Amino acid sequence: MKDFVFHNPTKIVFGKGKISQIGEEVKSTSKRVLLVYGKGSIKRNGVYDQVTKSLKAQNIEFVELSGIKPNPVLSKVNEGINLAKEAHVDGIVAVGGGSVIDTSKTIAAGFYRDGDIWDAFIGKYKAKKSLPIYVVLTISATGSEMNGGAVITNEETKQKFSFWTEKSYPRVSILDPSVQGSLPPIQTANGASDIISHVFELYFDGTKNVQIMDEISEGIVRTVIDCTNALMKDPNDYDARANFVWSATLALNGINGTGRSGGDWSSHAIEHSLSALYDVAHGSGLAVIVPAWMRYVYRVDVEKFARFANTVFGIDETDQEKAAIVGIERLKSWYKSIGLPVSLSDLNIPSKDIDKIVENAAMRTPFGRLKKLQPSDVKEILKLCL
Amino acid sequence: MKDFVFHNPTKIVFGKGKISQIGEEVKSTSKRVLLVYGKGSIKRNGVYDQVTKSLKAQNIEFVELSGIKPNPVLSKVNEGINLAKEAHVDGIVAVGGGSVIDTSKTIAAGFYRDGDIWDAFIGKYKAKKSLPIYVVLTISATGSEMNGGAVITNEETKQKFSFWTEKSYPRVSILDPSVQGSLPPIQTANGASDIISHVFELYFDGTKNVQIMDEISEGIVRTVIDCTNALMKDPNDYDARANFVWSATLALNGINGTGRSGGDWSSHAIEHSLSALYDVAHGSGLAVIVPAWMRYVYRVDVEKFARFANTVFGIDETDQEKAAIVGIERLKSWYKSIGLPVSLSDLNIPSKDIDKIVENAAMRTPFGRLKKLQPSDVKEILKLCL
Repeated sequence: MKDFVFHNPTKIVFGKGKISQIGEEVKSTSKRVLLVYGKGSIKRNGVYDQVTKSLKAQNIEFVELSGIKPNPVLSKVNEGINLAKEAHVDGIVAVGGGSVIDTSKTIAAGFYRDGDIWDAFIGKYKAKKSLPIYVVLTISATGSEMNGGAVITNEETKQKFSFWTEKSYPRVSILDPSVQGSLPPIQTANGASDIISHVFELYFDGTKNVQIMDEISEGIVRTVIDCTNALMKDPNDYDARANFVWSATLALNGINGTGRSGGDWSSHAIEHSLSALYDVAHGSGLAVIVPAWMRYVYRVDVEKFARFANTVFGIDETDQEKAAIVGIERLKSWYKSIGLPVSLSDLNIPSKDIDKIVENAAMRTPFGRLKKLQPSDVKEILKLCL
Repeated sequence: MKDFVFHNPTKIVFGKGKISQIGEEVKSTSKRVLLVYGKGSIKRNGVYDQVTKSLKAQNIEFVELSGIKPNPVLSKVNEGINLAKEAHVDGIVAVGGGSVIDTSKTIAAGFYRDGDIWDAFIGKYKAKKSLPIYVVLTISATGSEMNGGAVITNEETKQKFSFWTEKSYPRVSILDPSVQGSLPPIQTANGASDIISHVFELYFDGTKNVQIMDEISEGIVRTVIDCTNALMKDPNDYDARANFVWSATLALNGINGTGRSGGDWSSHAIEHSLSALYDVAHGSGLAVIVPAWMRYVYRVDVEKFARFANTVFGIDETDQEKAAIVGIERLKSWYKSIGLPVSLSDLNIPSKDIDKIVENAAMRTPFGRLKKLQPSDVKEILKLCL
């Protein structure tokens, strides 16, 4: 087990009907907030009304930044920073999923920065101050509701990059699983793929002797698979949704990364090139990339891939190589079974585009911890996605 | 899954050699601290020197309260409160295990209380303020290094009671697994019994549909059993110790209780009567009580006890009642195998004392969530300990 520091100050308020507490939580630091949300589904499902009613009840003023899209973009962040500065807000309320939260985190850091906040994504600036961030989560996937990270796409440079700071943890995140019952099945499936990929990025980073973390990782994956299957049948199954929602948070709140070497993150790096170039949902992109990455690297740690096959899919095969391959195939079949794409053609990306994707990924290569990947490796992995 | 609030602000610094950082951490709030420790083992194993050197390097003054014993007592707490007030300290550094940490938490709360701090244990006072607490952990068992609870014995009234406040979470806890290599095997075994019992108190509280928490619970128990077995062979096996240490913290840092009904806590309540009356190590008392409690209550939730038998001990038995009984027996055998007592006579408590123990427990009955226990139930459970 590796040395680590774990410190996660986010308060989680979990349960049906808890959104009405947002105003009371915000009140502890803020009187005038930027209210950030997406394309308006929160107006249809009643969440917007719950949030604004709760803010008004505490006399908290708000200015709105709406229209945040999946794969959120830097131009929208800059719009938000300007709006936040003009309105002299003292906090941000993010109502949505990862895109909304990550946009909010970046605005919160950019609020205290005179220069370009993109510098935080390319290692030229480390934010030491941030507006307090409050979250009302409406879709579970990224885990951003309980960590200090954010992923944003710079449309001009076609870079989908991330930053992380201690100051970017939300103060409070309210998780009401019942509001996710109205999501279309593909969004739940995309979430499942994203959650599971977070576990894999950590689990398959090559660190030995982290039994307690491996146990937790496998437990999260088994739970997410079971609950996703239940949600495909009944999206309003509260207990399945609640276990899914909390598992999503636990997958990337830092606990599951303790004692490890920091994670591999190759699949994310490659997928970020896909969704920087195409209109691809992150979870869908990962469902294509993750099994291909596994096929490409499993021999580096065949024991671990065989363990995964056994503990997640119950594959009882003494030949570790065979077990690993069957496990990877089972994962791919499961993605298919819940309606996820498993090839580039499923994503409508032509095979002739592979070089273009490799070129985008090359802005970040080498990456990966289990196996350090160069552009030629990325190309081989993308060929396995055909 | 039940609604919950989770908020754990303790920062964990984990790894070999990290104790030298204690001064730097303390510096953020305190200049003059009460240094609390036990019977002097920290002077023999070098921990005392590491801590005081680090404090001195940051010019942090300290006054010492030593001699904290297992099953820590109120008189010692009061001595500490007086010392802390006289010396005008602005922080506490607890160097030890649960007894030292719980004594420190109580002093930290009592520092701001004019009246008797025992009131916090009998529900007459809720501490809203506390001195900042820093921990250097030297024995893993209670999980107190990352929660807001404390257990203290009032020698006069023979009450071993607990309190919990939001203000009592340590600011920082430093966990260096390597310093636990010098512990005698029985102390590691007692720790294992305590850790596992925390998981059981939560796991067997009757809540349904908490799959993600059940997975984590079972993962902790399997890890603790495996690592304890390894430590019985080699107490200095670093990776086994590190997984054991971190599992102990995770077992009672709140995560594993989320979504549940608050835990059962009957075994702890009964054991607290044992260690209030006799010189019994908490973990040893639990090794006697837990299997007896299980035998007495398993029929209330036979499905869960059968699940435990299957997931922890691999018992593949379709008859749930049989599986449950075999699982309980396997647990008892395992306690025996690591040198723990499994009967009252192993603890040198005569059977004629049962009524006296029941009388002590009756100060708290009824207790228990899976099955609410009256004094007559406690008596039956104690008879199963013969």
